Amino acid sequence: MIKDFELHPTLASDTLLLGDMALSRVLLMNDARFPWLILVPRRAGLRELHELSANDAAELFTEINAVSRALGSFEPVDKLNVGALGNRVPQLHVHVIARHAGDPAWPGPVWGFGTSERYHPDMLKVRALHLRELLRLVAH
Amino acid sequence: MIKDFELHPTLASDTLLLGDMALSRVLLMNDARFPWLILVPRRAGLRELHELSANDAAELFTEINAVSRALGSFEPVDKLNVGALGNRVPQLHVHVIARHAGDPAWPGPVWGFGTSERYHPDMLKVRALHLRELLRLVAH
Repeated sequence: MIKDFELHPTLASDTLLLGDMALSRVLLMNDARFPWLILVPRRAGLRELHELSANDAAELFTEINAVSRALGSFEPVDKLNVGALGNRVPQLHVHVIARHAGDPAWPGPVWGFGTSERYHPDMLKVRALHLRELLRLVAH
Repeated sequence: MIKDFELHPTLASDTLLLGDMALSRVLLMNDARFPWLILVPRRAGLRELHELSANDAAELFTEINAVSRALGSFEPVDKLNVGALGNRVPQLHVHVIARHAGDPAWPGPVWGFGTSERYHPDMLKVRALHLRELLRLVAH
């Protein structure tokens, strides 16, 4: 019996849900230090990238590209960081983070760096609205 | 004028060259703390994942899967970490790292963690031989 997809509670509590693309749930990390989106393929039980079908992998690549472009619309990006780690949260998820030379963690990785800083609620709302528009996402 | 692909000197000096797959040059990170491979698509001038063509992206996904499986042949893997960062080395490259609960950096990321520990030359040779066989790579 295949369970339905359910978002891992840690991902749910750390992020704001932006909506669903064809494959992935799109989450905005609630950390004002870094423009940071997370894609979670809506397939139950996945842990590793290589468990995706070739079709799903191609779609994930398309979605990584779309969210990368969306992040670039806020301000120029020096480097995108794309990563599937999952050491703490086993559900397969892909981080896409816009990095800037001189951001707090630069040039190191953001994962595990310092303490996250929540957005001001108004700022979070504005950013979510903007991203939903760019990515044509419908709020749940 | 398109320049030919040339491996970035930092990647060259930190790694042992294992060989070429259809798209990527395969490198073994010379850090005995973590089983760690790097794929470098042999396309000149690339910095970001989204600059890959759809065909190259599909091939890269296949190659990530192949090296993931190869890393799993040494010992059981608790989690694979796959990442394209490039904050220090601008040439597009993808890390594939086998992580173990209790490894020195666990559960944090390995990038920027502590100081790398070079393999004993004999161990490096054995590991390279084994990986080249598994991945059917020919040494340059």
